[in-house]
Order: sequence, then C-alpha cells, then structure tokens
Amino acid sequence: MNTMQVDVAVIGAGTAGLSAYRAAKAAGANTVLIEGGDYGTTCARVGCMPSKLLIAAAEAAHAAAKAPGFGIHVDGAIRIDGREVMDRVRRERDRFVGFVLSDVEGIPEAERMRGQARFVDDRTLEIAGRTRVTAKSVVIASGSRADYPDSFKQLGDRLVISDDVFGWTDLPKAVAVIGPGIIGLELGQALHRLGVQVAVLGRGGRIGPISDPGIRAYALSAFSREFTLEPDANIAHMRRHGDRVAIGRSAPNGTATIEHFDYVLASTGRTPNVKGIGLENTTLKLDAKGVPSFDPATTRTECADGASPVFIAGDASNFIPLLHEAADEGRIAGDNAARLALGQPVRPGLRRAPIGVVFTDPQIAVVGRGYHTLRPGTFATGQVSFEDQGRSRMMLKNQGLLNVYGDCATGRFLGAEMLAPGAEHLAHLLAWALQAKMTVAQMLQMPFYHPVIEEGLRTALRHLDAELRAAQAKVGKAA
Amino acid sequence: MNTMQVDVAVIGAGTAGLSAYRAAKAAGANTVLIEGGDYGTTCARVGCMPSKLLIAAAEAAHAAAKAPGFGIHVDGAIRIDGREVMDRVRRERDRFVGFVLSDVEGIPEAERMRGQARFVDDRTLEIAGRTRVTAKSVVIASGSRADYPDSFKQLGDRLVISDDVFGWTDLPKAVAVIGPGIIGLELGQALHRLGVQVAVLGRGGRIGPISDPGIRAYALSAFSREFTLEPDANIAHMRRHGDRVAIGRSAPNGTATIEHFDYVLASTGRTPNVKGIGLENTTLKLDAKGVPSFDPATTRTECADGASPVFIAGDASNFIPLLHEAADEGRIAGDNAARLALGQPVRPGLRRAPIGVVFTDPQIAVVGRGYHTLRPGTFATGQVSFEDQGRSRMMLKNQGLLNVYGDCATGRFLGAEMLAPGAEHLAHLLAWALQAKMTVAQMLQMPFYHPVIEEGLRTALRHLDAELRAAQAKVGKAA
Repeated sequence: MNTMQVDVAVIGAGTAGLSAYRAAKAAGANTVLIEGGDYGTTCARVGCMPSKLLIAAAEAAHAAAKAPGFGIHVDGAIRIDGREVMDRVRRERDRFVGFVLSDVEGIPEAERMRGQARFVDDRTLEIAGRTRVTAKSVVIASGSRADYPDSFKQLGDRLVISDDVFGWTDLPKAVAVIGPGIIGLELGQALHRLGVQVAVLGRGGRIGPISDPGIRAYALSAFSREFTLEPDANIAHMRRHGDRVAIGRSAPNGTATIEHFDYVLASTGRTPNVKGIGLENTTLKLDAKGVPSFDPATTRTECADGASPVFIAGDASNFIPLLHEAADEGRIAGDNAARLALGQPVRPGLRRAPIGVVFTDPQIAVVGRGYHTLRPGTFATGQVSFEDQGRSRMMLKNQGLLNVYGDCATGRFLGAEMLAPGAEHLAHLLAWALQAKMTVAQMLQMPFYHPVIEEGLRTALRHLDAELRAAQAKVGKAA
Repeated sequence: MNTMQVDVAVIGAGTAGLSAYRAAKAAGANTVLIEGGDYGTTCARVGCMPSKLLIAAAEAAHAAAKAPGFGIHVDGAIRIDGREVMDRVRRERDRFVGFVLSDVEGIPEAERMRGQARFVDDRTLEIAGRTRVTAKSVVIASGSRADYPDSFKQLGDRLVISDDVFGWTDLPKAVAVIGPGIIGLELGQALHRLGVQVAVLGRGGRIGPISDPGIRAYALSAFSREFTLEPDANIAHMRRHGDRVAIGRSAPNGTATIEHFDYVLASTGRTPNVKGIGLENTTLKLDAKGVPSFDPATTRTECADGASPVFIAGDASNFIPLLHEAADEGRIAGDNAARLALGQPVRPGLRRAPIGVVFTDPQIAVVGRGYHTLRPGTFATGQVSFEDQGRSRMMLKNQGLLNVYGDCATGRFLGAEMLAPGAEHLAHLLAWALQAKMTVAQMLQMPFYHPVIEEGLRTALRHLDAELRAAQAKVGKAA
C-alpha cells in the first residue's frame, strides 16, 4: 500500500470540499482532495442549478397561460415540448457542471486523489484500499444523498429521486411527489406547470421550511388552488401496477381514491454521506444519526479527549444544507484544519444571517432562525398580504402573505417567514438588515422606491413597528 | 371676497401636498389644502402607475415571444389586443386614482378648497379670485407638467405627452418618442413590445439617468438591438403630413431618411408648476427657472431677509421628481410649516439614500448621487456583466452591466449605476447599504443566496474590494 503524509486531507470534492481545499491551501497547508464518486457538485449536477432551469421553463409556460389577463392572446395552443424542455435543462446543467470540472482540473494532480476514503484512525485515511494518507487534520465534506423509506424500493424503476428527474429526456404524464419539502414543492409545481399531472403528498403537515402557522395555512391554500397538495395525506397503499404506480389514499371524510402515476418522486429528505467512511474507527462523538458532533463556529468536531483533528462542512454535517452555507463552512473548515496542522489555534469563522428560499411561485422565504425558534411573549409580528399590493397586482402576481418579527425589548428585527412574489429579493434585504442588527424603526428609515414589491414589506414593517410600540407602552405602564 | 385665516396653507393636493397636509395636521396646525385642478396624483393618474401597467402588458407579450427558448411553443400567432391592453391599463389606473380620491374625501370639507391659488404676498393667497387666505406659513406643492419646445405645437393633435398615452383606447401603429429620458425609454420600449413601430430619438446623447459612460454605452447597444434608439439624433425636420407626422433625419454617415408616425410623444422633460401662482408678489429668491431656492434638509425657501414662511415640496421644487421623495419632502414641509406657525424652530427632516429606477428591460438603476458626482482619483469601480451570470442566464435574462463605486480612503460604498435584470431589487439592497454607511468589505460579509441575481452584484463588489485594496496598498507604499 502506498503511503502519503499531508497537513490536511479533505474528503469530498463538492462545494464544501473545494472550498475547504482552497482555504487550506491559502493558509499554507500541504493539502490533498479526495473524491470517491464523480467530480461535480450536488448543486450543479442535481440540485439548485437544474431545478431552477426546470422552474424557468415552467414559469415561461405559466406566463404564456396568464398573458390573456393583460390583453395578450395566443391564437392556438401553448405546446410544451417535453424533449426540448428537458434538453435545455440538461444542456445548461452540463455547462454549469463543466465549470466545476474545469475548477477541479485546475488543481495539481498530485493534490487530487480518486477513491473512497475510510478512516483508519482520527488522523489516518485509507483510499480505495490502495493508499494510506496520514494527515495532521481532516475535513469531512462528503455531502448528502436523497433518502427514502425502504418500503419505497418495491416500486423498482418507477421510483425516482430528484437526481433522476434531471436525467429525463422527456416529461412523463403523471408524477406523485412524496414529501412537500423544498425539493418536492419546487419540482412538483414546476412539473405541474409543464403539463404533468402532479400530486404532492406528505405526512405530518409540513410545507417546505415554513414554521409560522399563518404562513403555512396561506401557502397550503394558495398551492392547493393550483395543484394537488396534501401535506398530511393518508396514504393507504402505494404499489406497482404494471408499468405504473397506484396510490390509494383516503380523504379526511373517509372517501377512498386510487390514482395512477408514471413515477413516484421520493423527496422525503436527504441523509449525510457519513456511513462507510469508517467513523467507527475514530474517537469522534456521533449523534443519533451517526453524524459527528461539531461546533458550527469553527466546524471542529468533538472527540473523547476534546482535541479532535477532524472538521466537517457542507451537507455532510446535516446542519444547513444550502450551497452558500456549504461554501462558508468549507472555508472555515479548510482554514481551521490548516491552522491546526500548522500549530495555530482554530478560530470562529464568518457565519451569515440565515436565509432560505424556495423557488416556487409565489416563492417561500425564511429569514433568521424561523418562527418556531422565537420565544412566545418576547416578540411581536407585523403582517402584509400581497393580494392588494400595488405592483404585485399590476403584474398579476398579487398572491402572498408575509410576517416579520421584532424583539419587544430592543425593537430589533428578528426575522421573517413569507410566501410572496419576489421573496428571494425581499429575503436578501431582510437578511442584510438582520445581520446589520437593525431595529425595525431603522429599517423604516431606509428608502423604498415606488411602485415596487418592497412597499409590501414596508407595510408589514410599519405594522410591526406599531405592535412593538404598543408592547413597549404596555411594559412602560406596568412598570 | 371671503377671507380665511389658517396656520398652514398647502398649495396642491398631489402626493407632496397630501403628505404635507397630513404632517401639518399631525403637528397640530390648523391647515387648508388647496387644489386648482382635478384631485388625484401625478403618480396615480399619469405617472408610475399607468406606465407600470403598460409595461406589465409589454412584458407579457415579450415573455410569450421568448418562450420557445425554454421549449414552450405557441402554435399560432401571439395577438396583442390593443383595446384590451389599454382597457386594463385605464381600469387599473382608475382604481389607483380611486384610492387617492377616497383619501381626499376623508379630509374635512372645511379644510379643502378648490381653485387656483396665487400669492398676494409671502403670507397671503387668493384662491380663484374669490377667497383670500392668510396663513402663518405656506407649502408650495403644485407639482409639474410635461414640457416641450414650442416648435412641437405645429404637430397639433398628432403631438402627445405621456398623460395622453394613458387615455388611449387602442394602440397606434407607429410612434416617435422624442427624449430618451425615464418616461421616453419606459414607454418607448413598452410600446415596441406591444407591436407598435417605435423610434426613440434624443439630443445630446443622454440615456435615462445614466451618467457612467460605460453603462451608457452598454445600454445604448442593448436597447438598440431591440428598437430604434438614437439618443443624439440629427433631426432635420418634423412636420405634419396629413393625419401623420413625417420625421426626416440624417445618419452620422449622411444618409437621409424620412419616417412616418401616427404620433409624436414628447418626453422632453417636465417643468415645475410655479408659473401663474404669483411668486412675483413674494420676496422669495427664484432660480433661473423661476423656482424658489430652498434648503433640501428643511424644504424652507429663501427670501431677502432670510426668514421665509414658505416651504416647497415634490415636483414643484424641481429637486428629485420621484414619488417617494415627494412624500418625504411633503412630510418635512408640512411638519416644518406647522412648527413655524406654532412658534417652534424648523428642523431637518429624514432624507434617504438616493435611489432611482427605470422600469425598462433590463432595468436601469442609479444608487447614490451618480457617477458624475464622484471626484476622479478618490474612488474605485467594481464591475460585473450579467451576460454569463448563472441565474440570469437560466431565465434568459442574461443581459446587463453593473458598476459599483467605493471610496478609496475609507472603503465605504458610494453608489452604483447599472443596466441589469431585477435592478429594482439590487438597487434597494445597495441603497440600504449606502444609508447604513457600510464599507464594501462589510457588504461582502452579508449573505448571498444561490442561485440568485444578487450573486452578480457580489461579483462586482468583490472586484471593487480588490480595487480598493490595491488603491490602499499604493497609498501605503507611497507614504
């Protein structure tokens, strides 16, 4: 067996791994990047990029269908060419993957290794049983994969995950999407708008990342008007029926229905790739899911004696599975891994204000740690409906509800949950304000142009400002 | 003649006047609101609102035409029903105007007067020759109107201004737009996308509010690919030709052409409504255009002895003719007019970071006081092209160029000029950062989601950050 000694070994060449590799190199460490699968990131291959391409096509079809509302008519049918749609998705996706591959090719061959990495001990890795790498520190950036219950496997080739969708060369007729999470909602609505018969079914009632019950109820009602969405469906059975899948379910009133689909798209969650990398041979503390415990500020994992030489970043950490967070975590992990290897103390890295966006229409966005993390009695809520919001109505996009939260004691802005037109943009504005520690009153001093969707946000902030003043007046009186 | 004594008299019941009236009342002043024309704001009647409605229809037609790029085909023609388009524009416009009218109707009748106001002296107004109002202070909020050279008048009913466009019941075949300012560009492109033959012609070369030559050149090239745009046209003649207008012009190479249009839309600027209100009877200092000189911080005008009781707000001041600025100025003017009337000192009001948006496609935006106000040698520029920007390309919106400016000495963000997809949203983010006095380095610590147009902005900020560091290193070396 070959042997190799390095300062830092990075397991996984996805977004977090590439970022960690670069940061470790920039910090002066002798670094090796190890990839057990194909090069290319989850984001570019099967995540953000192809899903947004599919959504762009869906929006084009939807816009054409809505044009008569403006006096623009189509004399004839709107024909969705599934082959062309999927061809563009794959072609553009391959272009994005190509950029990642060139990035990887730019890394000196001596610093790249192919093969599955397994820990032998905290500082030693075996790569594909051929090479033994001894490192002063290690970054786990092995990513995640779609996960679903074992019982789904009986559907055979009729069961697909999001990765498979982006390999399609044509659009199917009917798809059941199991799991109204971020991926399920995005793909479900997009396929529906592209003419596919869609049912999005879940268990437990959750809709994407929404935790505010008011926003959740609005989203359920808005999406349900457009396509079948049952976030707490009562699925009696799901089984192969010739070349298709039959799903039997019963409505709350007891009525039983059976529907047939070409595919079941399992979007029931993702699981970190931490099985099979030999964590059992390390001294790392693992959580219930087998993921190493770690400090989000430094990305350093914990081991029995407290001095772990292992860092973890990206989807593998099961912390915040978002590209920009993976890039940040990779940077922190790579930098700290290098520092540890070079005898410098590890340090907290830059973590940004939390922001999450679901690219449905209207879009869903969450800014801050979410409604469910707020302590009852300590915060006030401001709200706006977009149904009568000027600019949204002009564009026939007047659907949505937005809640903003503020801290009663300090007047500080705490976060927001929304279903709103242009939510991705509102979310940036709010996340920047959150990170800048603005009060709601300060935010209202900022410019709002006219006529813009941001004026809807201002309405909610004005409402919140009044609520905060009322809460403070009450405290003042009581004192 | 009736006589009336008040604390504050407000001339004009548009956006600035209504805002001033409310602020003066809120400050406890006995106030009267005087309107010489119809109720309803410029914005709602003939400005922001109907123009954005026309643009929404134009975008719908444009989106339908672009759908094949995504694999979405229209089997048959895209038929633009001019009557339906204009019907929706007028119907929705009337709805917005209706909101303003209800607002006005909510004001007690005793505090509203109809009729043209004329100053008799600094503190006395005559209304339609019937009523004499003596006020402790006065707010001029008389608005503005479209203005054009006298020579245009020979075109008779073939000459229109933007106000007239929104009264159309159908779309004409061909329109020459004279003046590629904000209104000319917005209406010119919208009409073109709605199937009208359009030529947008100007003199002097300016394009909207752009002052950065790089952005201007890009905008000229981008718009010119779509419709005729000659910001420095050589118009030999423009004359009535039967029911149409013939415009003769010569290209730079000397080639002469004659084109015929149904209308000439004069968008050659707006002029404040300060003629005919008797300013000659006051002691106010007037500038070359006959507009009272004033302090933008307090909106107070200047008179010979320095103690003017007159304030000015909105388009009448010829300062920043934008709705949100008019509302701010009205608020400041009304508050200060009331304070002066009640014996309190006037005070500076809240002015926000400058932001300007043109709702073309791509949109134009200017944040801060513009490139032309920056002192050469004191600032650095960061740039991004949107032609290869990920998300923009996914949506087939990958056209645009953005420049951000930063102060070499402090690293502070100074402003931006851009032609960009979603510029209205980028402009808000940047204007908030400008008002919060962020450095470019601080802005780069803020979250950017993926994949979003805001990532293009980040590219420009990274470039600017590097330029600022380079400039500082140079200074450091020299020192």
